[in-house]
Amino acid sequence: MSLIVTGSIGIDTVETPTGKADQALGGSSIYFCAAASYFGDVRLVGAVGEDFPPDYIQEFKHFGVDTAGLEVRKGSKTFRWHGKYHENMNKRDTISVDLNVLIEALPPVPAAYQDSAYIFLAVTAPDNQLALLEQFPKRKLVVADTIDFYINTQRDALEKVLKAVDGLIINDEEATLLTGKTDAVRAADALLAMGPKFVVVKKGEHGAVLNHRHGTVSLPAMPSRKVIDPTGAGDSFAGGFMGYLSSTNASADDFAALKRALAHGTVVASYTIEDFSVGRLKKLTQAELDQRFAEYKAMLSIA
Amino acid sequence: MSLIVTGSIGIDTVETPTGKADQALGGSSIYFCAAASYFGDVRLVGAVGEDFPPDYIQEFKHFGVDTAGLEVRKGSKTFRWHGKYHENMNKRDTISVDLNVLIEALPPVPAAYQDSAYIFLAVTAPDNQLALLEQFPKRKLVVADTIDFYINTQRDALEKVLKAVDGLIINDEEATLLTGKTDAVRAADALLAMGPKFVVVKKGEHGAVLNHRHGTVSLPAMPSRKVIDPTGAGDSFAGGFMGYLSSTNASADDFAALKRALAHGTVVASYTIEDFSVGRLKKLTQAELDQRFAEYKAMLSIA
Repeated sequence: MSLIVTGSIGIDTVETPTGKADQALGGSSIYFCAAASYFGDVRLVGAVGEDFPPDYIQEFKHFGVDTAGLEVRKGSKTFRWHGKYHENMNKRDTISVDLNVLIEALPPVPAAYQDSAYIFLAVTAPDNQLALLEQFPKRKLVVADTIDFYINTQRDALEKVLKAVDGLIINDEEATLLTGKTDAVRAADALLAMGPKFVVVKKGEHGAVLNHRHGTVSLPAMPSRKVIDPTGAGDSFAGGFMGYLSSTNASADDFAALKRALAHGTVVASYTIEDFSVGRLKKLTQAELDQRFAEYKAMLSIA
Repeated sequence: MSLIVTGSIGIDTVETPTGKADQALGGSSIYFCAAASYFGDVRLVGAVGEDFPPDYIQEFKHFGVDTAGLEVRKGSKTFRWHGKYHENMNKRDTISVDLNVLIEALPPVPAAYQDSAYIFLAVTAPDNQLALLEQFPKRKLVVADTIDFYINTQRDALEKVLKAVDGLIINDEEATLLTGKTDAVRAADALLAMGPKFVVVKKGEHGAVLNHRHGTVSLPAMPSRKVIDPTGAGDSFAGGFMGYLSSTNASADDFAALKRALAHGTVVASYTIEDFSVGRLKKLTQAELDQRFAEYKAMLSIA
């Protein structure tokens, strides 16, 4: 069924111990869309400024993304982020960030998108997430992400989001910040008690934990020897996760489907980190993805 | 086939955020033996002082351990450790440590043990590990563990150990210290290049990575909501790992068997942390262990 992401579109400068990408295509949307595209069609709602390179719109089109909801706003500037990763790639510092169009009015949702059933509310202000949510009256499964800034400054609104969505995908540090629980399993328990039907806590190189009333699953990351840039791993994880659920018309009550979605998200994200921006995903074939998914399943199969 | 552990036997005082154990039975051997006992017989080589409580020898016997190699040395004192865990249980501080008998002469290996085939050289000085190794001429599969102290102070001897053993089981921080690689997979690659046929890097709540020329496997920990005391988790992991290999007469070339051993070690260790000392393992039934192993397999099965 129809899948949509409402997220940021940005221009990123990223420094890692292995190299640097200067003014590359970034933001949650492109990573989400690129990953989700392997499972079916994906729609995009987001805004950029008039400085946004037309070539980068072509990158969305490369992945078959429906860009009717991509607004190029006159007089505005695109979101820009400059980050630098530490030696172990687990931590990064923000060198500079210019929110620009992200703090202006929300982009309009095209009328043709109102029948969207699978909704991913990527990181933005919780009130905006709630406002966007209302624009999809036929929503079947809604998942949100958030970050430390909103946990620290807009907690009340965020708690409303948690009651309004089916699922939350969040990284481990943010799960701890939101719950005070220092391990992923107990943080996921506390988050589940805040409203959603399921919670995914992402642990980077250590994998992810899915928590649901029907059970708790911990899956490892795919072992990787080629980590070029971790940026976007979480967003492409979400894209693979939601793409799989949408492609199978799964409900938030279907624990087995959520577990399979966790595995698909994990595997597609393992490609994202192999290059800057969506460099690796642009070259990724369906056969390669299927092959690595088979390897991942085999790795986890205990005879 | 016959399994033996050469390791420490101690009296531990452990403080965690949930409580305290005062002068409890500790040391690598009891955790290893308790876990290994679910897979078959296990022999012990180790020394204690004359202060060692006879009740604690009975605890080894409770697990069916062959204690012919347990020397109670007149005029010596037992190894003692006092540790305190941080709030998140991932880190601990050593409040005090008295090596005592551990820095005296090695305990003699009984003649009846010389046919031992599966050997676990728990943490001790690398030269001692090499000396012990030589006393098992019929060894089939030898695995060693080590800690930061020996990495920092006796690296040359440790490198000889790595060339002499079939496998190394080591935690992630120590793997990084030994190799300079900050992630488990690349640290395991570097360790494999130092001599052993396989390497297991333990990551605590994040699971473990097995590296072998036939492949790399990352498995998660069993999700746990009842962490009372993490002490001994790594040693009981090793006990389950080696116990399984010994019970199936597996070789270090059998990658599939090593993967199953990784799973068995993971599951038995998930019980160790549920109480202080070997409190939980003493109550653990084979049926409970089998049940959790089945749950672990099911959790990792991606349909």
